[in-house]
Amino acid sequence: MKLDTTKKILIVGLGLIGGSYARSLTDQGYYVTAITGRQKTIDYALSVGMIAKGAASPDPALISEADLVVFALYPGVFLDWIRDYQQYFKPGAILTDVTGVKGCIVDPIQDILRPDVEFIACHPMAGREVSGVENSDPTIFRGANYVVTPTKRNTPEAIELCCHLGEVLGFARISTLSPDEHDDIIGFVSQLTHCIAVCLMTCEHNEHLQDYTGDSFRDLTRIARLNDEMWSELFLRNKPALLRQMSLFEAELARLRQRLEADDREGLREMMRASTARRALFDKKTN
Amino acid sequence: MKLDTTKKILIVGLGLIGGSYARSLTDQGYYVTAITGRQKTIDYALSVGMIAKGAASPDPALISEADLVVFALYPGVFLDWIRDYQQYFKPGAILTDVTGVKGCIVDPIQDILRPDVEFIACHPMAGREVSGVENSDPTIFRGANYVVTPTKRNTPEAIELCCHLGEVLGFARISTLSPDEHDDIIGFVSQLTHCIAVCLMTCEHNEHLQDYTGDSFRDLTRIARLNDEMWSELFLRNKPALLRQMSLFEAELARLRQRLEADDREGLREMMRASTARRALFDKKTN
Repeated sequence: MKLDTTKKILIVGLGLIGGSYARSLTDQGYYVTAITGRQKTIDYALSVGMIAKGAASPDPALISEADLVVFALYPGVFLDWIRDYQQYFKPGAILTDVTGVKGCIVDPIQDILRPDVEFIACHPMAGREVSGVENSDPTIFRGANYVVTPTKRNTPEAIELCCHLGEVLGFARISTLSPDEHDDIIGFVSQLTHCIAVCLMTCEHNEHLQDYTGDSFRDLTRIARLNDEMWSELFLRNKPALLRQMSLFEAELARLRQRLEADDREGLREMMRASTARRALFDKKTN
Repeated sequence: MKLDTTKKILIVGLGLIGGSYARSLTDQGYYVTAITGRQKTIDYALSVGMIAKGAASPDPALISEADLVVFALYPGVFLDWIRDYQQYFKPGAILTDVTGVKGCIVDPIQDILRPDVEFIACHPMAGREVSGVENSDPTIFRGANYVVTPTKRNTPEAIELCCHLGEVLGFARISTLSPDEHDDIIGFVSQLTHCIAVCLMTCEHNEHLQDYTGDSFRDLTRIARLNDEMWSELFLRNKPALLRQMSLFEAELARLRQRLEADDREGLREMMRASTARRALFDKKTN
């Protein structure tokens, strides 16, 4: 099942990611509507032409005309929204999302969802250090990864539609993982890296650090500017996987420290060569 | 004392950084020569016109004509070079360097140096993931920081000359620190970040990691491609400061972990807000 332009698409939650979906899909000729918490956001989205219609509350008319609904909400809000408003979905509607954690979302939603609609979870792995619809920008999807996390309850048609949505949005690589695999990998590549960036910024109190800094420190702390409301929720909802990844990383840092303490130069070089080889491979495949 | 174009400049060690100095200074009309270990490197440098003359061994004629000598060698090689060839320096010559650690270099060199020449240490905080003269590129200095690390034994004239060299090379911010302050800060902003990047690459063995990665992980591991010969020496020569900075970071990561384990959402948000505020300030001053 392809996402053709006869499909009506509703975005619920018009922030950085929801807004970037809306801009991209509208620009490509899709009919896009939005529901979000603030009238100001709807007014802005209408004024720049990124949506055809919008409402600042869960308008039954908008919900019931949508063939595809994209949820770009915080996890807790998302669960409540489904519970409270699912009676308005059009029969046969496909629901998807952009949530950064999956285990705590996918089963609970599929458990309570009406049998005549389908939820297929998805994680577009793109972002910026700034939030809000005004900063939305579909170019953040270029070259980025898009992960679909189907379960046994999903149909091949819905998985295909969701993958096609990723293609339409311009993602470079579209893959599928189970929700648990996703959460483990995300705990490592995304959440652990944000923990590290935060700790690098909060652990040192030299007032003039910025005068003595190279690109490496700037790179490692770019993501230290983050939306604390969203990220604290993502960390807590993926707590077991994130704690596991933190432990793996701490043990590896301890291994490097032991080699440094022991003046084991060859041991240090061996870790550096492994890291260099691995990162080079990585570059080749991603760029 | 300014670096005017009547000064003859000798670069010892024509790698990524030495080569970038040579290209920049030659392009700006300075007379630049080089001594480096391989004839192939000298041939390349002459063929692209980045130096006026060069030698693959410590040629007394090249050494004795230089008013300013820039050492771009590994720390151990640098110390040996001074011991073995300092008799050839022109009286009144100024020596500087690009070494990434200072405590282990500055005092030993100033201790053994002839009294009629002066060594003023300097750290241009720029680099690339690739090494070698072929990859040298003076644009890496743009927007970067340049730190001069004088001691009581340095003259105001030499400090001024060294600062002016940083300006000529195009560095955005030129500052001075004591060698010990430098090593503490470098242990944090540069060496600790390289330790983290290496450990992120070596601690996880998912074969297809690159398919599920966002920009954050790519940013944090860009510097995981590194010259193991150079970095292992830099780590070991700055061991006490680096171990201290690792401990500070590990304690901060443990603080975040405790808040996560305790479901202390407000505590997590407080760390994230502190990190966001600090990083925003940092951006303003650096960009």
